[in-house]
Amino acid sequence: MRKSDLPGAKALATRLRQVFEERIPFNRVLGLRLASIEGEEPRLRFDMRPELVGNPARGILHGGVISSALDVTGAVAIHLAHLRRHGIDESVPFPNIGTIDLRVDYLRPGRGAYFVASGRAVRMGSRIAVAHMELASDAGELIATGSAAYVVG
Amino acid sequence: MRKSDLPGAKALATRLRQVFEERIPFNRVLGLRLASIEGEEPRLRFDMRPELVGNPARGILHGGVISSALDVTGAVAIHLAHLRRHGIDESVPFPNIGTIDLRVDYLRPGRGAYFVASGRAVRMGSRIAVAHMELASDAGELIATGSAAYVVG
Amino acid sequence: MRKSDLPGAKALATRLRQVFEERIPFNRVLGLRLASIEGEEPRLRFDMRPELVGNPARGILHGGVISSALDVTGAVAIHLAHLRRHGIDESVPFPNIGTIDLRVDYLRPGRGAYFVASGRAVRMGSRIAVAHMELASDAGELIATGSAAYVVG
Amino acid sequence: MRKSDLPGAKALATRLRQVFEERIPFNRVLGLRLASIEGEEPRLRFDMRPELVGNPARGILHGGVISSALDVTGAVAIHLAHLRRHGIDESVPFPNIGTIDLRVDYLRPGRGAYFVASGRAVRMGSRIAVAHMELASDAGELIATGSAAYVVG
Repeated sequence: MRKSDLPGAKALATRLRQVFEERIPFNRVLGLRLASIEGEEPRLRFDMRPELVGNPARGILHGGVISSALDVTGAVAIHLAHLRRHGIDESVPFPNIGTIDLRVDYLRPGRGAYFVASGRAVRMGSRIAVAHMELASDAGELIATGSAAYVVG
Repeated sequence: MRKSDLPGAKALATRLRQVFEERIPFNRVLGLRLASIEGEEPRLRFDMRPELVGNPARGILHGGVISSALDVTGAVAIHLAHLRRHGIDESVPFPNIGTIDLRVDYLRPGRGAYFVASGRAVRMGSRIAVAHMELASDAGELIATGSAAYVVG
Repeated sequence: MRKSDLPGAKALATRLRQVFEERIPFNRVLGLRLASIEGEEPRLRFDMRPELVGNPARGILHGGVISSALDVTGAVAIHLAHLRRHGIDESVPFPNIGTIDLRVDYLRPGRGAYFVASGRAVRMGSRIAVAHMELASDAGELIATGSAAYVVG
Repeated sequence: MRKSDLPGAKALATRLRQVFEERIPFNRVLGLRLASIEGEEPRLRFDMRPELVGNPARGILHGGVISSALDVTGAVAIHLAHLRRHGIDESVPFPNIGTIDLRVDYLRPGRGAYFVASGRAVRMGSRIAVAHMELASDAGELIATGSAAYVVG
């Protein structure tokens, strides 16, 4: 059953947007937007902007923007997997999630007008969760992949 | 022999500041400052600012700020180790350095008025370099450690 | 075009087996077998054996067996991707490949009568290659995932 | 206060040896020996043996031997840090520790007659622990470093 099919999916998207797009200051710096919470893999999107550049001669994303976007995307994937298990209606509070560690592989230069990050929970224990993440350019080119472990409180 | 003892160390610091503090837009967003290039381990510093927050209820750094600062600090450490080997005067161009991958361990919440990141080259091959990095709070508490591989062009 | 369709695929499999199954002593300790070099993702296989156990009370694989198998599988994937690019006939020597770094996520206990590891090159530069790897049990359960960077000489 | 000064340190070493040297089959394959549990950083030792070789032409350790030794060393460091906190006498059972993930940086070829691995707990939470590890050759050369997260049950 897909997330979007669940009753309450729209309300969930609104709640996730409030937290991840509005309430977290550094996510606003990055310009992260929740593009989709359908299916198993949430997708986030952000536009290239001059302040996100790491190499001005080449006009590509800073590595830190990439690692930041992947970390947040993994956390969103774990939130979704957690809520899918415990119920997505508004009475279920969001879990407390902390990143234990993060690995990022930088595969290609971060070139594009916008970027799409997707994430997937590959381990959902009662205490420990692990997500895999990817960042692609607007041309669909794979820019980076990541893996992160989270403590779920 | 320590970096600061070398003739040209002051000019090198100026060049590094131009690149890492001024020319890279996202480093300005982070507010990164080169605090020291003496000895084996360069140190960078940045102040807590509202837009760097990841958890507004707790007032702590966003994980992405931490991973970004560690990535840059590792790159500065590799630059320094490279220049120490090839000569630090202005005729020697800065190497082209690209991050292959990055791992960050988040050890404690990023709480403080300012933060200090330090880095150290643990492998300096002709093509591959590896750095270890740490981030500490103004109270000297270890907040995160990192490890990154770089391709040196 | 799939690897197995290429003329010389059978000879290539023989050469890879000689190197990875026979010539590398520690691979023999692990009992690694090349199960398939078809398609994009080579698969290796090994049987559970008493000496590979990490927790005798639970009868599960040692974490080091898992990391070892994933490292080798990534290297095989990079070999294949390299040979696919440069030609697979016997006149083309195997590349010199060294692991720069490895990350392993341990997702579930390593329980089973045999295990299958698969790998895939996600970056194939002239000097740097990155592979993603997975280890599954005989029941098809995902036990671990890995990511490794290699220098290609 | 150093571990070795504690009453019961000798009995603790005996218990740790039973578990890590004798009871875990794959540790016996690796030939791991607890060299020291004094101070903050336990040290393990193992001898080069023909079956641990990864590259017979060069006579160097297999990468998997290195990652295995580092994983075990991190686990021993977490055991020690845990027991130091909860009491080291025989009434305190060993904690259940599972590796969440592991990163290894391979810095230099694994060449030597024997090798020494050391580890250190850098985070000791009630549920999550993180260790840093190093592997050095008999000549004192740094061969690899690692970082691992563990769940402590």
